[in-house]
Amino acid sequence: MTIRIGIMGYGNLGRGVECAIKQSTDMELAAVFTRRDPQTVSILTPSAGVYRVEDAEKMADKIDVMILCGGSATDLPEQTPKYAKQFNLVDSFDTHAKIPEHFDAVDRSAKESGKLAVVSAGWDPGMFSLNRLYAESILPCGSSYTFWGKGVSQGHSDAIRRIKGVKDARQYTIPLENALEAVRSGNTPEFTTREKHLRECFVVAEQGEDLERIEKEIVTMPNYFAEYDTIVHFISEEEMQRDHSGIPHGGFVIRSGKTGWEEENIHIIEYRLQLDSNPEFTSSVLLATARAVYRMAAAGMTGCKTLFDIPPAYFSPKDGRELREHLL
Amino acid sequence: MTIRIGIMGYGNLGRGVECAIKQSTDMELAAVFTRRDPQTVSILTPSAGVYRVEDAEKMADKIDVMILCGGSATDLPEQTPKYAKQFNLVDSFDTHAKIPEHFDAVDRSAKESGKLAVVSAGWDPGMFSLNRLYAESILPCGSSYTFWGKGVSQGHSDAIRRIKGVKDARQYTIPLENALEAVRSGNTPEFTTREKHLRECFVVAEQGEDLERIEKEIVTMPNYFAEYDTIVHFISEEEMQRDHSGIPHGGFVIRSGKTGWEEENIHIIEYRLQLDSNPEFTSSVLLATARAVYRMAAAGMTGCKTLFDIPPAYFSPKDGRELREHLL
Repeated sequence: MTIRIGIMGYGNLGRGVECAIKQSTDMELAAVFTRRDPQTVSILTPSAGVYRVEDAEKMADKIDVMILCGGSATDLPEQTPKYAKQFNLVDSFDTHAKIPEHFDAVDRSAKESGKLAVVSAGWDPGMFSLNRLYAESILPCGSSYTFWGKGVSQGHSDAIRRIKGVKDARQYTIPLENALEAVRSGNTPEFTTREKHLRECFVVAEQGEDLERIEKEIVTMPNYFAEYDTIVHFISEEEMQRDHSGIPHGGFVIRSGKTGWEEENIHIIEYRLQLDSNPEFTSSVLLATARAVYRMAAAGMTGCKTLFDIPPAYFSPKDGRELREHLL
Repeated sequence: MTIRIGIMGYGNLGRGVECAIKQSTDMELAAVFTRRDPQTVSILTPSAGVYRVEDAEKMADKIDVMILCGGSATDLPEQTPKYAKQFNLVDSFDTHAKIPEHFDAVDRSAKESGKLAVVSAGWDPGMFSLNRLYAESILPCGSSYTFWGKGVSQGHSDAIRRIKGVKDARQYTIPLENALEAVRSGNTPEFTTREKHLRECFVVAEQGEDLERIEKEIVTMPNYFAEYDTIVHFISEEEMQRDHSGIPHGGFVIRSGKTGWEEENIHIIEYRLQLDSNPEFTSSVLLATARAVYRMAAAGMTGCKTLFDIPPAYFSPKDGRELREHLL
């Protein structure tokens, strides 16, 4: 029996889900939905069709789980509650501050329809959240740290591109090795923003622009760069193309906690991701979550859930006995 | 409302559970059960009583979750199925090859009584298993690696102590940095036993013994040392006492996997533990699992489960909204 997946939105994330389906023998791509003209969208899977977003509702009986691959700023707040009326689904909503609000809207919608929705699947929120939860539950006396990078921050790259005279830019968030080592050594320091991460920028300037002015505008930009040590490199378009076309990311979740009657023993739990492709890894989490959604829905669960609510075995195509024999 | 915990067996693990309860405001220690004369066992918690193992059955209504702190060789195969007839419980059964058999015996017993049992909670099996499962589910095309250490192996220390002329011994299992780096770099090498771990031994010899003979007996011991590079240090009793009285352990679970239509992107997921006290960390996992057992039992679940079956939120004292607001 195969789980039929629908992809809503065919950008980096949607294409990543399509690639992940190729690696999963218990899944198949049923359809891709796009806001563009379907004639202009060519996908990689010969057996699947491309349809207009408006056609999704007619195809509810052909799709077991819909994976929403839109953005968190404007797409998902509207789409997830809407499609939860007809589909079991999963999204990667990642605006941390608005998760409770998003959750409530989706929960209302999915409870009304009797469907199951999982929101905020990915790596942060997602696998990082799970690791924060497990680690804090095991070691209640302690401190948790999240470090991001080394990786491309889309938001910071965009902020640089908005500066006058900038043709292209790529910003890497880099965790500071000193800070990581301090946490790993069992200390529980409180860091300033500057002490945790460094920002490294690669910028292509327009011909004849004042590079000093651009650099100054970058490093003094409030919220984005002013609170950090920021390094700016001016490079050519060719160098940008050659050296910075990937979308790597990753990071660390570290919990340092104490046990013992007098809290005499220190334990460090560290979870680390090194990702060649931020969107493809997120897509891979989305697809494994779609498998879990399918099973939880089959077991009669409805409403909105997060990764916190999913028994881990549901992510795997293997059955309980196989998991206990080979992975436990 | 407080979860009343019973501890069955008061060794390192039982004492660790007792310490962990002190850090958990939603738990209390109801009773410790021992095979020794209760008069001779002094515990740290003034409010809790110490009872004979035989008295446990009379106290079923005073205990919400029993934590079995015996050994996997002889205690748990007998105790866990037995006490699952009367208690919701958790154990740390860690003989990997016998988990399916243990699971089945406990499952039969717990289903008959309508109780809930979770077996093999700890770190390996336990948190390492969970990380193997999540990582393999997200990245189906790839290889998983488990490294242990640096940490004390009780079994290997005991094996050295059985050699004639050895007064005391401590063996550390040490993962090889080269092997870790090879995996982290995105290669998926196949290692020999010798390439993954080193064994370092600290030995106190009896006066006048032939140290060369002892060293040779250690490094050539089949199954324990012959397949490894082994380093032997002879030290004094004072040095043993001063430098090697702790029970540290830890290790790494690393998954290296590929995504993309042509598998062009590599991702590394790494989970690492550095534990000052192996038993206290295991105890901390057992206690968090006891919280989950309590809730799953309250939700009507029965039979035997493992960490694979537990929604992560159940491990935390925080409610769903709080978790979504602060940890997601």
